[in-house]
Amino acid sequence: MGWHNVSVSMQNIYDDEVFFAGYQAMRDARSGINEAVKQPAFLALLPPLDDAVVVDLGCGDGQLCRVLVDKGAKSVLGVDHSARMFALAEKRTVDDRVRYLKSFAEQVTLPASSVDLVTSSLALHYVADLPPLLERLATWLRPGGWFVASMEHPVVTAAPELGSHPCIVDNYASEGERDTTWYVEGVVKYHRRISTIINGVIDAGLAIRRVIEPTPTTESLVQRPNLDHYGRLPAVLILAATKPLPR
Amino acid sequence: MGWHNVSVSMQNIYDDEVFFAGYQAMRDARSGINEAVKQPAFLALLPPLDDAVVVDLGCGDGQLCRVLVDKGAKSVLGVDHSARMFALAEKRTVDDRVRYLKSFAEQVTLPASSVDLVTSSLALHYVADLPPLLERLATWLRPGGWFVASMEHPVVTAAPELGSHPCIVDNYASEGERDTTWYVEGVVKYHRRISTIINGVIDAGLAIRRVIEPTPTTESLVQRPNLDHYGRLPAVLILAATKPLPR
Repeated sequence: MGWHNVSVSMQNIYDDEVFFAGYQAMRDARSGINEAVKQPAFLALLPPLDDAVVVDLGCGDGQLCRVLVDKGAKSVLGVDHSARMFALAEKRTVDDRVRYLKSFAEQVTLPASSVDLVTSSLALHYVADLPPLLERLATWLRPGGWFVASMEHPVVTAAPELGSHPCIVDNYASEGERDTTWYVEGVVKYHRRISTIINGVIDAGLAIRRVIEPTPTTESLVQRPNLDHYGRLPAVLILAATKPLPR
Repeated sequence: MGWHNVSVSMQNIYDDEVFFAGYQAMRDARSGINEAVKQPAFLALLPPLDDAVVVDLGCGDGQLCRVLVDKGAKSVLGVDHSARMFALAEKRTVDDRVRYLKSFAEQVTLPASSVDLVTSSLALHYVADLPPLLERLATWLRPGGWFVASMEHPVVTAAPELGSHPCIVDNYASEGERDTTWYVEGVVKYHRRISTIINGVIDAGLAIRRVIEPTPTTESLVQRPNLDHYGRLPAVLILAATKPLPR
């Protein structure tokens, strides 16, 4: 199982039976780019986790939450709005350090400066209005705390039906809702320019520390030649940012 | 005249007669996206210029240098390696506050903390090895000083022959030299991922303050419907960064 593609939005696509079955089969087959490319790049960006208090937005079945405590986090709060995902996460996790909250990320309230790390794996492209969420999570972070998030790359969300074909990008400047088909019709994602995403993080008071567009290594391409097109057009954008220490 | 597309690289394409004639005709006809989209976005990112000491890398005929002193800069050093551009810049500028240096940007040496602002307009995609130049210009900046640079957008430099057709991007992950035809054959540009460019600025010790992917306004599209495709695929990337104040 990977820990990818889990919604934090106001839609409930992950509670659609047809979608959920297709999605879980894909995840369980490890058929995607996730294990070969996205996960290693994401994990490499994480700060030291010893005794860290972590919030994971769009936690899905909780796999990242379990990885985070395995790597030393003191506690992880996994947030996901999907009842099915929530049930799966509870079932798959036997660890007191991990708790789950069934909620939309936008509706979570936490004390100021109470969190060392906020993570989000491939979920923010489901959030309609990103700046309020960024501002909110920035308040949760203690000074020096980290925000590490992956999302579908803007060159893909720009024209998602075309983006399934490598090399075609369109409507990049037109930000907003995109209705796509992914196992079922009517999966809604939100396109934003890469500049809009980065400026949103900056405007929330965080400092950009790293931007990653992971691509398959030569080694992974030998094992999975089907990943070749991810070298032609980037699939995922990963950002790492920190809350500045007071001057 | 615009102040766009001026080389700072080790190639001398701007001293090729055929290229220079075509380029100048294009610039003089104001036929491009430059005046409608790129220049306003670039100028909007500049910090207050009163009494500022500025270095402009890839200054071309000096138009940006003249704009900068008109906006209050105390002095502007324009750097360009092209003898033709250098001659044109000298001819077109009658202002003691502007000086020109015929040099590759990579070869300029200036005192540490002596500069308030480094600008570069559509030139960095000609630089083969960007990190050393970024590190060098970061030393020139005083703490609190700004770096504002535009360059061809990575979705265009990735596959430049395809990129002239909107909507097609390819070979994004493969960074390095691209031979293109632009008035003449053999114009060499260098493709880097947007993440590589941003991380290079961060690694030089600067803080990213703004990332802009300018697109035509509705108003400009009424006047110039031919600019429509710049809303489909971004043409230019503009970055603004600052040198942090000491803690």
